[in-house]
Amino acid sequence: MIPPRPAALATPLALSMGDPAGIGPEIIGKAWQRRTEAALPPFFAIGDYRAITKVWDGPIVRISDPAEALARFDEGLPIVEVEDAGDIVPGQPNMPGARCAIAALEIAVGLARSGAVAALVTGPVSKAQLYAIGFTHSGQTEFVAERCGVAAGNVAMMLAGPTLRTVCVTTHVALARVPELLTIDLVMARARVAARGLQRDFGIAEPRLALAGFNPHAGEGGALGLEEIEILIPAVEQLRDEGIDIVGPLAADTMFHPRARARYDAALCTYHDQALIPLKTLHFDEGVNMTLGLPIVRVAPDHGTAFEIAGRNMAEPGAMIAAIRMAAEAAERRAAHG
Amino acid sequence: MIPPRPAALATPLALSMGDPAGIGPEIIGKAWQRRTEAALPPFFAIGDYRAITKVWDGPIVRISDPAEALARFDEGLPIVEVEDAGDIVPGQPNMPGARCAIAALEIAVGLARSGAVAALVTGPVSKAQLYAIGFTHSGQTEFVAERCGVAAGNVAMMLAGPTLRTVCVTTHVALARVPELLTIDLVMARARVAARGLQRDFGIAEPRLALAGFNPHAGEGGALGLEEIEILIPAVEQLRDEGIDIVGPLAADTMFHPRARARYDAALCTYHDQALIPLKTLHFDEGVNMTLGLPIVRVAPDHGTAFEIAGRNMAEPGAMIAAIRMAAEAAERRAAHG
Repeated sequence: MIPPRPAALATPLALSMGDPAGIGPEIIGKAWQRRTEAALPPFFAIGDYRAITKVWDGPIVRISDPAEALARFDEGLPIVEVEDAGDIVPGQPNMPGARCAIAALEIAVGLARSGAVAALVTGPVSKAQLYAIGFTHSGQTEFVAERCGVAAGNVAMMLAGPTLRTVCVTTHVALARVPELLTIDLVMARARVAARGLQRDFGIAEPRLALAGFNPHAGEGGALGLEEIEILIPAVEQLRDEGIDIVGPLAADTMFHPRARARYDAALCTYHDQALIPLKTLHFDEGVNMTLGLPIVRVAPDHGTAFEIAGRNMAEPGAMIAAIRMAAEAAERRAAHG
Repeated sequence: MIPPRPAALATPLALSMGDPAGIGPEIIGKAWQRRTEAALPPFFAIGDYRAITKVWDGPIVRISDPAEALARFDEGLPIVEVEDAGDIVPGQPNMPGARCAIAALEIAVGLARSGAVAALVTGPVSKAQLYAIGFTHSGQTEFVAERCGVAAGNVAMMLAGPTLRTVCVTTHVALARVPELLTIDLVMARARVAARGLQRDFGIAEPRLALAGFNPHAGEGGALGLEEIEILIPAVEQLRDEGIDIVGPLAADTMFHPRARARYDAALCTYHDQALIPLKTLHFDEGVNMTLGLPIVRVAPDHGTAFEIAGRNMAEPGAMIAAIRMAAEAAERRAAHG
């Protein structure tokens, strides 16, 4: 059942550890342990190595240069250290830990931009902790986009599992605000990013998109809301004029069953839960979050820090393993096609 | 895999045929055909018998009294006729057909209220056609509620499949209007109806409800919307004070995977697609719509008229069969417990 290991990459993947008190360190260790059976390419972690030793007893190799990870990957989990995370207690986040998480992310982005690593996989962080230390981005995605010089409107959050990919038009905003944020321009921008991402990172030459309606029954001809008529239908028409293969707006409730999913490569969803409910209903333990539209490959497991189970050896590395594989495959494709 | 046939009911079930040009007649015929393997109790159809003979070649028994259906159920599909549906062409709805659908529904409700039938299963109608003939209710549910003398706020739409039940707080309205419609009182009214319905119709002595948040991440402490703090949390607190076992508001995207579903008997959802997306993602071909809070049992297959496939022998009766079974089981429980 395991797909073949991707063709060898010239550089390793960088995994930022996320919050040292969350489950990031544990799932990175467990992913390394399963590297052979899961056919994972060489990677290394960035963070405070003590966060991993506290929750995982496998071998660790402290490295200073990413290239070392290629040669020493089978010896132990390679780790590049960043600043001290202070007192690390699994399940109990603190401010030094949040600073360490951001330092790791910053270094990882830099390495990816420079070409020293093939792709970036980010561990889960605590937004509450980040905000407490003065982090002004709404999440890691926005931070990475800014560090890459890409405007937030020109990236897109894709959630992917084995049988479904969804892309969000709006993301982390109050649902009541979505009607004012939903514009023809924004829908078109996200659709273009999605189509290009499916080509570049997933190797789908002619990607098929399906746009979800915003209202029940996709507005039922205007009787149940006007967003379809005023925004979504015009956006689809203009996108089709541009040559993008997109259908919709479709009734959101009837587009995620198996036969419906077979008709598109990604569902473009108008709000967070419209994308996340079907994805996590189907693929809770293996969901991956990929940022499309960046000059680098950035993927993350689609779950949080799970402080409540941190340090108890209960965290499942399935989503992290899926994220590493997806990042490697995207990096391979970019390396092959430029 | 087939559950045992419910204990014998003293009266048959009435199936209103829905729009004669839709797939209602075909799936009723196919359900009768599978009556033995699906362990279905005796039922009869109400409508224009020609709608069935056009799309199904099984035996038909025209009856005039519901009681005849019990004795003659194995002879053929029993049908009680209502007014002429005019020219019936599968896939081409018209106004006489819509009038026939409403006449069938009206008679079926009357029979259920009088006790002459054990439960009511409604076939799919075309809302557009109904509105065209001056129908002023937003759907069959509201019509049935009114005929039963129950205010619309005191019934609730439940969608059910083999592994999930969802109940809607708001239903067929524009999503932008939900924030204004969502009140503590409405959430509480629906929760009470849901809890009572799970006891009375599903035999769950101590039903466990889970309320979905309205915003992404259930509002993330107010950062992503205030509906949770202002409406949903107070409603849950007051419901718990009343003795109703309800948790939430939960992040909607993480409450529908298998382990999460095991923790509740029904998910109370704040808007249509929040309830319908997970249900139809998981159980597209077997979803059932049950109206809770009525003095009678009313169930429907959770799909539409599907005019595009009507008359082509392509309609799957799975949801109709599931609806008949659920109606029979609920009627049994009511008969046993009053």
